[in-house]
Formats: sequence, structure tokens, C-alpha cells
Amino acid sequence: MVNVAILGFGTVGSGVAEVLTKNSGVIGQRVNELIRLKYILDVRDFPDSPYQGCFVKDFSVIENDPEVDVVVETIGGARIALEFTRRALTAGKSVVSSNKELVATHGYELLQLAQEHGVSYLFEASVGGGIPILRPLTACLAANELDQVTGILNGTTNYILTRMIKAGLTFDQALEEAQANGYAEKDPTADVDGHDACRKICILAALSFGQHVYPDQVPTEGIRGVTLADVAYADSCGYKIKLLGRCIREPEGKVCAFVAPHLVEGSNPLAGVEDVFNAIAVTGNAVGDVMFYGRGAGKLPTASAVVADVIDIAKDKARCRYNPWGPGSKDLVVSPDQLTSRWYVRARASMDEARLACGELQPLARSGAPVGEVAFLTAPMTQPQLMERLKGMEVCSLFRVL
Amino acid sequence: MVNVAILGFGTVGSGVAEVLTKNSGVIGQRVNELIRLKYILDVRDFPDSPYQGCFVKDFSVIENDPEVDVVVETIGGARIALEFTRRALTAGKSVVSSNKELVATHGYELLQLAQEHGVSYLFEASVGGGIPILRPLTACLAANELDQVTGILNGTTNYILTRMIKAGLTFDQALEEAQANGYAEKDPTADVDGHDACRKICILAALSFGQHVYPDQVPTEGIRGVTLADVAYADSCGYKIKLLGRCIREPEGKVCAFVAPHLVEGSNPLAGVEDVFNAIAVTGNAVGDVMFYGRGAGKLPTASAVVADVIDIAKDKARCRYNPWGPGSKDLVVSPDQLTSRWYVRARASMDEARLACGELQPLARSGAPVGEVAFLTAPMTQPQLMERLKGMEVCSLFRVL
Repeated sequence: MVNVAILGFGTVGSGVAEVLTKNSGVIGQRVNELIRLKYILDVRDFPDSPYQGCFVKDFSVIENDPEVDVVVETIGGARIALEFTRRALTAGKSVVSSNKELVATHGYELLQLAQEHGVSYLFEASVGGGIPILRPLTACLAANELDQVTGILNGTTNYILTRMIKAGLTFDQALEEAQANGYAEKDPTADVDGHDACRKICILAALSFGQHVYPDQVPTEGIRGVTLADVAYADSCGYKIKLLGRCIREPEGKVCAFVAPHLVEGSNPLAGVEDVFNAIAVTGNAVGDVMFYGRGAGKLPTASAVVADVIDIAKDKARCRYNPWGPGSKDLVVSPDQLTSRWYVRARASMDEARLACGELQPLARSGAPVGEVAFLTAPMTQPQLMERLKGMEVCSLFRVL
Repeated sequence: MVNVAILGFGTVGSGVAEVLTKNSGVIGQRVNELIRLKYILDVRDFPDSPYQGCFVKDFSVIENDPEVDVVVETIGGARIALEFTRRALTAGKSVVSSNKELVATHGYELLQLAQEHGVSYLFEASVGGGIPILRPLTACLAANELDQVTGILNGTTNYILTRMIKAGLTFDQALEEAQANGYAEKDPTADVDGHDACRKICILAALSFGQHVYPDQVPTEGIRGVTLADVAYADSCGYKIKLLGRCIREPEGKVCAFVAPHLVEGSNPLAGVEDVFNAIAVTGNAVGDVMFYGRGAGKLPTASAVVADVIDIAKDKARCRYNPWGPGSKDLVVSPDQLTSRWYVRARASMDEARLACGELQPLARSGAPVGEVAFLTAPMTQPQLMERLKGMEVCSLFRVL
């Protein structure tokens, strides 16, 4: 018997309870041990819930119950969740989490704590929702030196961009629609400004390169600056605008990581990832390019990943599983400034001025462009080189080309 | 120390030796044990190989060396490979294989043998080359009741179809080009007639549904019947023709599995999978749709998957890993005849005759169509229902719509 306690009965927590219950038959075929939901911690009352006997309001009941093997943390945030995770690991309980903020900011400490107490700390659901990505990255691609990871890591922004591209909605209209459909929060900052994608690329970077990359080390730009004009120019040359989280292996063990809108070529599989779907492309020196695709959020997809971690632990309670990484450091992360790429530029200028400034370029056109607007793709260069060339020009939009 | 013996120094076997050597640094960071290549079995001589000290010609040297922990079988086929795999497992050695034919035909027996001898039998590389698919399917999606798996499982046929679609080559021209590029064998039967995809869908079905599905239970149609006319009609309605291996969970524990060309809608991520790339889409009752994408063949991608299995074993030699499945049975597999879908039909008839026969349909057009040719998409129905309606009509092509 493996006893599970769920912390937080919100969307993900209730999804975990549902999957454990609804799929108990098929789960039972895959694990010899019975998995039993013993506690659900929540400050609220749920008088109509089918899990009546499970609810507790005091974490110490779970902490002090030696029968509890696995604590599922779906509270979110990095305050109470941090405290309860520390206490659960210290009490010798494995912890499974969907909390990207907590893992991205305190992952190193919590993995160390799990190791000290001989338990597991797993968080497959923290990146890509239900998409299997962290275990494939660390187990299935273990024979590879990983070169880079590039992901569409946030469903809300991908939905907004898709609606701008396919339905011609403005950013504000698309955001409003996303909120009406439950794909965006009332306060959409964490998604729209790229913070959510930033946390996820931190976790992917840590697992890929073995050192903690902290969110405040990752330059992060969201999608508020993407306009329908940019969407139209991108479309004119067969590109789609996507918000990408990227991490790249650099010489001497360093890492480059950032989040920003990119122009992605239509033939790249990432360009076809639409609506709330996520996808993560990984390049390894043996496997080449592989990509993982699916729903990056949602009650049951996220619960699918959480319960997979619980099953992994239940298969062999005595074995502790975690993929520890190093503490990271201030000078681990190098700026994307040194990264050469082509650029998309939209500016108030003439094409002659643009050519004079940038040399060889690919001019773009769109119908309805106002007089004095110019857009083009540059030759490959770094951002400082580009900024030097664009000096004095009134730049409206500036995105990397993947 | 974990000692490895490679059986067969062909493309995959030499790739495994290369990855173990070239990536020993990063592999060493992921496994505490040193992984050492001790033997390579091959009947041929390789006087210029850097692995001089490793070559043996007699399998019993490997079988009788108690130091050998893992045998990597990359011989292919189901004769010598079967004998050596049986003997290795019986000698208490774990076996890692890239051999889809062997797993698809003898997987049940070999998994039983591994279990009896307390060793592992792993074959991640047997499906999708370097794409992580079998471990994600069994571990990361373990919380799901799996509903179906749909895959572009053969790179050769996908390359041929891509060249027909994008360059307008005929099947014969595209096959010739694939052979010239090393993407197709001199005798292309196994790929072009769907046998390779059939073996892979058998393995996916067994892992998804827990019972061995044998290749001779799986109706298999290759791509020889796909013409440029079909490609043009499919394009006219936004579809791509893809060779799909499919397995579907049916009531009462039964399974439907088959391989056939399909029309795939442009918005489906499988439609964008081009050239030699493979992709496998999986539908689970919690996760929804997820897809895995990458190179389905090739020396280093396949070696990446093989070495991942070796690393998995090396991490904990004492633990035996395999995902056993049941023996299957004659009546496990139900015919795709009962599966309802829309159909693409190209025939010698008039549109009036087609409407009279099939009722509601979506007519298709292509430039240059000869007089008397008609093509259309039907309403959803089973194949027997369709055949009844098409009685007396001269049908040229008939493919399911996914």
C-alpha cells in the first residue's frame, strides 16, 4: 500500500484525485502496490466532494502520519508550498510537484533535501503539463551531450498568438477571448510577460546542463509587443511568431537562456504548434532533433504527469529518484547578446535607409502598411551589432529569427 | 563497472560503440558506474577499427564471461538474433535490442525469459529510432487508459511520400532517389510494403494494451498504390497522404491494429512530419493527445536510444526492468473492417454515379484529370459498407481519412 496526500484541492489537485480514482484499474495493472488517497489538505470545505473522509486542514496531520509515503504538492507559489515541501521531505516523504515556480527558484535546495533524507522529489508536471518531457530528457536522452532546448512553453500566449495569426484579432482582443475561455487568468502577467515560460526554461536548463539556472538570470520578454503588423510581415515570408523559451550549451560549461518572441520558419515543426498546445524541441549530439508535443496545461493532462510520478515512486518505494543538479552560480549564465541570429525588424524608415544601415537584407511587405513603415530580415548578427546598425532609426518591433 | 558486449558491428552496432566512446564524459556524469565496451561480436574482420581488442567471432566467449552484464543485440532478423538473445538472457545477462522484427515476433517469450532470470530486456530503439517513445509510453503515461496510438513509423516511406508531395516525383522516381541517398534498401520490400511499420505498431500495441499483437494479425498495406493523382486530390482539400500504423483499444480488451496509407488533415501535427522523420501520436484518457517526433532511423539516433537503455540498466544492475505483456491470442485482434471513417475514393466513373452510389460526398478536383476520373471523400462508414456501395465501380485508389 502506498498512501498519498494531496496538498491543495484546486484544478490540478482535484485532477490528481480524479485520475487516481477513475484510472485505478489500469494503474493497478502497472503497479503491484495499491495506491490509496489518504489525505487532501485544503483550507476550504468541500461538502459535496466524493473524497469526504480525506480532507484535513492541518499539514502536521500529514507530516506526522508515518503511513504517508508520497505528498503531492499542487498549491503553487513559493511560500507555503516551499515550507510544506521542506517539511514533507524532512519527514522522509517523497514529494511530487506540479509547481514550476517552486522548482525554478528552490529546486537545488529541495533536491539536496530529498537526497539527504533518501526520498524522491519529482516534478514532471512542472514543464509541459501532461507532455512527457523531463523523464525523456534525463533518461531517454541520457546518452547525448545536449546542445539546446527550444520550447513553446506557455499555452496562454500560444493561444493568443494563434488567434492573432489565424483570426486577425489584436493582442488585446485575443487576450480577452483567452480570458473568456478560461485560458488566461484575470491578471495575465505571469503568462503574457513570459514569467511562466521563464520558470520552465530554468527547469529544462538545469536538467539539460546540470546546474541550477535561476529565473532572475534569464532575460525574459513577453508578447505584449507583438502586433498584427508583425504577424502579417512574418506571414509574408512564411514565418509564424512564437514565444520561445531557449537554453543553449555554451563553452566552458556555461549556459545561455532566455525567453522572447521569435519568427519561426513554417517548415519547423514548432511553427505548427497552435492554440494552447506546447512543444519542446531538444537537440542532442547523437539523437539530433526530437520534439515532444501536447497540452501544456489543464486539469487532467497535468494530473496525468503528476500521477505518473506517483506511480514511479510506488513501483519501488525504497529507491529514491531525483535528478540532482548543481547550485548554479552568478557567472554560469551568459547573455544572449553574444548569440548570432537573423533578426526581424519593423521600423519607421525607408528601405534605402534600412539597407544603408543593415547592408544585405530581405525586405518584407504587407498590404495596408502605412507610408514610412519598413520591415525586413537581416543577415545573421548579434543584438549589440544590430543595435549599433539601427542607431538613430525609430524601431517598432525587433524579434529574433529561429 | 558495467561490461557491455555488442552483437553485430553494422550501422547500429558501430553507432553504439561510437556513442559509448564519444560521450563517455557526459554518460559518466549520469551513471556512477563506469560503462566499458568489452566485446564486439562480428564474423567480419575490422583491421582499422579503433576497437581492436574487443572483436570476437564466437558468441560463447560473451555468453561464458561472467563479467558481461549487458548484451546489445543489433544483428537484426529473427534467427541468430533470437538464439543469441535467448542464450544471453539465460546466462543472466540483460539484453538491449534495436531489433523490431525480433521483439514483434518473439517479445512475449523473451520478456518471460528475462523475468525468469531476473534480468532486463529493453528495446527503446526498436520503435522510432532515437525518439523516446516506449519509456514515455509505459512510464510517463502510466496514469492513463490509452485509447489509441497512431504513428508515422517508417522513414523510408515518409521520405518517398514527401518527395511525391513536394517535388512531384512518381513513386518509382522517389524510391530511386531514396535508394541513391541511402534512405532505402536495394530490396525496399520491408519498408515500402509496410512490414517495418507493422512490426513497430505490434510493439506499440503490446505496450499500450498489455497483450502481444503478432505481425500476421495486422492487416498491412504499403504505399505502392499511392499515385501522384492521389497526392494532387489530397492536396486540393488540404490533406497529406501518410503511411500510418494504428492501434486502437476496443471493447472487451480487444485491439484493432493495421497499417495503411491515410489522408491526414493539414492541421494535424502528423501532416507536417516530412522526409525521414517519424512521429508517434498517443491518446490517453487523462493526457489527451501527445506526440513524439524525431529521426526514426540512422546510426547515431538509433544508438542514442540503445545507449539510453544501457545507461538505465547500468544505474542499478540489480533491478530488472521490462514491461512484460501477455501472450496475446488468436481472437485478441479485431479487423479494421468494423472501424468507421471517412474515405478517399478515386474511380473511373462520373460524379453522378459516385453520388448515386455513396450519397453525401465531398467532390475533389485536380488539374489534368483524365475524362471519366472522379475523386471524392465519403461520409463516415466502415469498409464493408463502402465496398457494398462501390460495387460495380472501377476503383483506382481507396484510402482512409484519419
